[in-house]
Parts: sequence; structure tokens; C-alpha cells
Amino acid sequence: MSLLENLSWRYATKKMNGEAVAQEKIDYIIEAARLAPTSSGLHPFRVIEISDPELKAKIQPIAFNQSQIVDASHLLVFAAYDEYTLERVDSVFAQQENERGLPKGYADDYKNMLLSNFQQQSKEQHFEHAARQAYIGFGLAIAAAAEQKVDATPMEGFNNADLDELLGLSKLGLKSVTILALGYRDVTNDWLVNLKKVRVSKENFVLQLS
Amino acid sequence: MSLLENLSWRYATKKMNGEAVAQEKIDYIIEAARLAPTSSGLHPFRVIEISDPELKAKIQPIAFNQSQIVDASHLLVFAAYDEYTLERVDSVFAQQENERGLPKGYADDYKNMLLSNFQQQSKEQHFEHAARQAYIGFGLAIAAAAEQKVDATPMEGFNNADLDELLGLSKLGLKSVTILALGYRDVTNDWLVNLKKVRVSKENFVLQLS
Repeated sequence: MSLLENLSWRYATKKMNGEAVAQEKIDYIIEAARLAPTSSGLHPFRVIEISDPELKAKIQPIAFNQSQIVDASHLLVFAAYDEYTLERVDSVFAQQENERGLPKGYADDYKNMLLSNFQQQSKEQHFEHAARQAYIGFGLAIAAAAEQKVDATPMEGFNNADLDELLGLSKLGLKSVTILALGYRDVTNDWLVNLKKVRVSKENFVLQLS
Repeated sequence: MSLLENLSWRYATKKMNGEAVAQEKIDYIIEAARLAPTSSGLHPFRVIEISDPELKAKIQPIAFNQSQIVDASHLLVFAAYDEYTLERVDSVFAQQENERGLPKGYADDYKNMLLSNFQQQSKEQHFEHAARQAYIGFGLAIAAAAEQKVDATPMEGFNNADLDELLGLSKLGLKSVTILALGYRDVTNDWLVNLKKVRVSKENFVLQLS
């Protein structure tokens, strides 16, 4: 199936049936997020993979008690850098030099321009920029799940600070952004499963300037 | 090819060869963005499709004179809502009711909760939230281009305010977020074409909590 067919097949699953998703499919979905392009290749986000029922039960009240949190096989928490530190930016460029066999410092001008820009921004601006990059990976993970015929619920409805605390993200320099719940639809009990997918019309979505 | 194969094939093309991309491929790529899931189905972003050489030439100096702006066949400008107005939120729910044949006001409780949340936020917070949704569509458009074997450059490096003014976006209630330049790689002259794709390692990317 093509990407468009996969995107038409998927929907934001409201009720999952508790069935486990094979680890190789989970790995595939995470790999799509890892391959995401990001601004200057900084890849300022990480994925926390959760399948432990006890941990999912602790997350549920943090997420307005939505059933998918516990009925999903796996939760992927997308978490973005809380800031662009010198160390983080340096390590990305060092890795590029190393893996590409390029001379040390080959991109110093570009790196210093980036660092100079970041120095003029607040920590909150850093995080917002990093969070946007996480959404690219989030979108690709959604596409990967649909390709694997794994159902998924993209979720923003949770208390980010509480989840960060539960998962110990702040000591990792991360802040949670979204959750992707992965599992299989409960065809009988999901109110959304048979409803038409509604999107802004093509005419309203795209503005053609010749 | 699978999504992962397509994501491995693609790269942020640095030099394009000027060849035109067929309109049906452009339409396919835009359609992937239109099918993107977004928070509460609000779909708070639009795509501006640009192929006119004169307009591209005007955009180039706004985008640090990057060559892809004029060598690309098409530019897709992703632009997000500048705010969530009552009218915009209402229209989304009215469309859902209409297309799904649901009773008028079936989701009023949910809609009013959303509107109440938005009322407590600044216009800047609205835009940031909308911009994040645009990045989901941006990611899916990148995947769609790769599937179509169309090269693409995801670009944040431009002066957003200047582009908004050039394209007249503010009167549409939109603010530019990203550009996706679409075209074909210039194999001879693109310095990046043969370099290894570098990403954070799997071990560093995913944190498994059982």
C-alpha cells in the first residue's frame, strides 16, 4: 500500500483491544522517527518506549484517564531537548565529522553561526524549536505504524510536567511533547472506527501561487 | 520500497538541477500533508504551492540566497494559523458534524473545553501549537516526496516575517513555518549527495522503560 493509502487506513484509535504488538514492528516505527530529518541535523528529541503495565497504569491518570494508555501495547513518549547546549551541538558536529571521515572543524563556521543564534534565544525558544523537530519524527512514526498495520493514537492530552517527573526526564535534559499509543483497534467498542475521516478540503488546504 | 527505505534514500538536497516535477507528484505530496492527523482534528495549517520563477526569485534573498529556492521545481510553504479563533474551531466541528451525519452540537462539551483552554492562552501559544501540527504534515510530505522519488529540501532558514509579507499571509491569518523545496538532485554538484546519512545512534535515541 502507498503512503496515501496507509494514511487513509489509519485513524486516531479511541479504543484498543489490549493485543500486543510485535517488538520488530515497534522497532520499525521507532526507526522511522530516528531517520527523521531535523534542523541542521541536530535531532533534538528522543523516544521513551514503555510497555510495562504498571508504568502505563501510573501514566493513565496523568493523561485524563484515556483508555488507550493502558490498552495500548506500547507507548512511545516523544521528548525534546530542554535547551541547545554547547555540548549537545558540538557532539552532533563531531559525530558527523567522524562518520563522514571529514576533517575536524570542517563545519565550524556553520556551527558557530548556529551557536551564536541559539545564544540570542531563551531556553524556552530552544525547547519550542526542538519540540517542532520532534513533531517531524512523530509524523513519520505515525506513517510507519500505519504501514505496519499497527493502530496508533497520537496524544497531546496529558500533563507534561507530571509525566516528565514520573519518567525522570528532566535529569536527562528532556521534556515530554507527545505520546504515540500503539496497539490494535477494538473494532466493536471504538466509536470512531467507522466514522468518515474528515479533513480540510483540498480547495481550502492549498493555495496555488502559479 | 518501504517507508524506511524511502527515508534512507532521501536527504536534504543541497543542489537541484532545475528539472520540473510532474504536477501529479506535487499533488500527491500535498495530499499526504492534508491527510496528516492534527490535534483535535483542527488542521491549523495550510500549504502555499509556488512554481512561478519570478516569485521564487523574490523569495531567494529572503532565504539566505539558498540555490534550492530557485532550482527547485516547486516550493511548498507550510503556514500555520496565527490563532485559534472561535470561528475557526466552530467551522471544524461543523464540518465534522456535516460530513459524518452527526447531530448538530454532538461534540459541544468537547469543543467548549477546547475553546476554554484556548481562551486561557496567548495568541503566541496558539501559533506555537498550530506550528507543531504543521510539522506533522511537513514530515508526511517529506515521506511522500521520497516515495515519489522526488528530492526535497526541508528549510527553516528564511525570514518568516518577510516571506509572510511577500505572500500576503497575514491577511489570511497565517504565518509561515517551513518551506519544502521539491525538485531533482544535481548529482554532479551537490556536495551532500554522496555523504553518509548521520543520525543519533539507536542506543542513544530510544530509552526503554521495560
